[in-house]
Amino acid sequence: MSPLDLDRDAAWLSREDLDAARDKLPILYVDLVPVRVDDRGQVIAVGLLLRVSEDGHIMRELVSGRVLHHERLRDAILRHVEKDLGPMALPRVPAAPQPFTVAEYFPTPGVTPFHDPRQHAVSLAYVVPVAGDCAPQQDALDLTWVTPNDALDPLLIAELARGHGVLLRQALAHLGFAI
Amino acid sequence: MSPLDLDRDAAWLSREDLDAARDKLPILYVDLVPVRVDDRGQVIAVGLLLRVSEDGHIMRELVSGRVLHHERLRDAILRHVEKDLGPMALPRVPAAPQPFTVAEYFPTPGVTPFHDPRQHAVSLAYVVPVAGDCAPQQDALDLTWVTPNDALDPLLIAELARGHGVLLRQALAHLGFAI
Amino acid sequence: MSPLDLDRDAAWLSREDLDAARDKLPILYVDLVPVRVDDRGQVIAVGLLLRVSEDGHIMRELVSGRVLHHERLRDAILRHVEKDLGPMALPRVPAAPQPFTVAEYFPTPGVTPFHDPRQHAVSLAYVVPVAGDCAPQQDALDLTWVTPNDALDPLLIAELARGHGVLLRQALAHLGFAI
Amino acid sequence: MSPLDLDRDAAWLSREDLDAARDKLPILYVDLVPVRVDDRGQVIAVGLLLRVSEDGHIMRELVSGRVLHHERLRDAILRHVEKDLGPMALPRVPAAPQPFTVAEYFPTPGVTPFHDPRQHAVSLAYVVPVAGDCAPQQDALDLTWVTPNDALDPLLIAELARGHGVLLRQALAHLGFAI
Repeated sequence: MSPLDLDRDAAWLSREDLDAARDKLPILYVDLVPVRVDDRGQVIAVGLLLRVSEDGHIMRELVSGRVLHHERLRDAILRHVEKDLGPMALPRVPAAPQPFTVAEYFPTPGVTPFHDPRQHAVSLAYVVPVAGDCAPQQDALDLTWVTPNDALDPLLIAELARGHGVLLRQALAHLGFAI
Repeated sequence: MSPLDLDRDAAWLSREDLDAARDKLPILYVDLVPVRVDDRGQVIAVGLLLRVSEDGHIMRELVSGRVLHHERLRDAILRHVEKDLGPMALPRVPAAPQPFTVAEYFPTPGVTPFHDPRQHAVSLAYVVPVAGDCAPQQDALDLTWVTPNDALDPLLIAELARGHGVLLRQALAHLGFAI
Repeated sequence: MSPLDLDRDAAWLSREDLDAARDKLPILYVDLVPVRVDDRGQVIAVGLLLRVSEDGHIMRELVSGRVLHHERLRDAILRHVEKDLGPMALPRVPAAPQPFTVAEYFPTPGVTPFHDPRQHAVSLAYVVPVAGDCAPQQDALDLTWVTPNDALDPLLIAELARGHGVLLRQALAHLGFAI
Repeated sequence: MSPLDLDRDAAWLSREDLDAARDKLPILYVDLVPVRVDDRGQVIAVGLLLRVSEDGHIMRELVSGRVLHHERLRDAILRHVEKDLGPMALPRVPAAPQPFTVAEYFPTPGVTPFHDPRQHAVSLAYVVPVAGDCAPQQDALDLTWVTPNDALDPLLIAELARGHGVLLRQALAHLGFAI
């Protein structure tokens, strides 16, 4: 076990501790929009995960996850892309820390466009081009690549949970598309 | 007491709880660079706080503070500007959530340019023009306004604690100055 | 006539010279989304101009215009806000030069979401809060303030010419709204 | 000759026409900071060109050049990277159009930190990771890769002409370095 792994273990919270913290503090997340780009940097596809939610619904999601104690943002980005898209995804982690937006998830629906019943989460959002082979991991049923145009389909957007549909549209707006 | 105040009280952590959380989670902050602008939006002065540190040193600081549970980022920005510059500061809270940078403070010096011995803090950094009367509050000894040029003086930068000198220079770079 | 006015006159192109340049060079513009904000910096209204187009149609527009030779970007922003919203608009010109997006207008429709039959224009886009009294100037028939929610109405968006509907949605996305 | 080449030829200005336009209009540029990144997206080196200036001085430069008529920004970025670093540089053209800053070059020194005796140029600045083999092209004497830390050396910064030293520092600030 590498020193980093030890450090991460130490940084892990028990489920009880995490639940307690969630009642008291905003939790820091990264939200990542995985994309395929062509040689000119133009986004040609957006990756969406298909999952079964805790209440048994089929839903789509962006790559998303918590930043751990003592973890650099770029390591959290890398870890979550590998966790959801696999170890061969070859993500191009952004060189600069400035996110394209910050999404504020509230446990109460309607405060912002973003909603997380478990917690108040504040998420730094980045577009992350991936150059390698991607495959759904763990509890994801599937990974679908859609064109930016298809990603704007209201039916598809409606399948994205917790406001990820809004975040996807904000990402496409930032990328220059006609949202 | 307004419902908002009640909500904030509920969101407060005891000193013990906060210390426990700091051992387990990155803590979300906002770092704010208060500025005076002219009619053309040009920054003509930067505001710096003078404080006595916990170990008795005189040091300068930017406006900075924690985001509370259930608190919107814009409310945290407003609250910290009022806390440090007074209720008449009339801050122009940024309309968009995109920060100019994100500063990662580590308890271990040298991991990043930012250091906080108390905790791993991740701070969204914004430039905040203030239009009203500002006065140092609470434990601040003084509030000084310096020109952008004077703000780049290495002697002044050296008085800024915890990497705030780096953040100030990054802010001036973002504002287009010849850092 | 002030030295600045003289300088601007010298910087003006004859109609023939401008037409010749438009055949040879991309022309630099600023596109400005005028907004009203509340004390927390939240956008509560977006300003839209109502004009008669050259071919006699009624259409809506954002504030937009050319950057002149020897003109600073912040002076171009100030000049165009005053030209379209009047001298009492009190615009809060952005302190930093980073635009929220860059819109590329091509004379050929479909190359990008932005279209200008007269020219290839590249436009730096900024959100500009205005604090004063605004009134339509010159050839504008009216100035309407709509809520961010109403600004997303597809019927209203359809009235915006040259891709300004897309730019308005991109601005609202940047501002954190559920576009 | 491809249709694109024909289009570009048509878009070219004669030396006389370009000189005439430069007296009347701001000229649109892109300024590019070529970088090497590691697997975590961390910048490990910055590329600088060594040239002989028109007046015979040795100087360093970033990659920079004009945006042509009818040319997309991403095509201008790609073209200038290939022009200066060679056809095997494999630049990762930014997916989003938002630059990290906009540099305003004035023919009069001192108006801004940027100076171009030939013209008023407005330049969109991007950081561009390159993944392939780079070699100095055309009139460049050499291409040097320096670490971000070495890039901040005042002696090196002083060798950068036209304000490119300021732009390089602004880029490193945007990338999160302790400038």
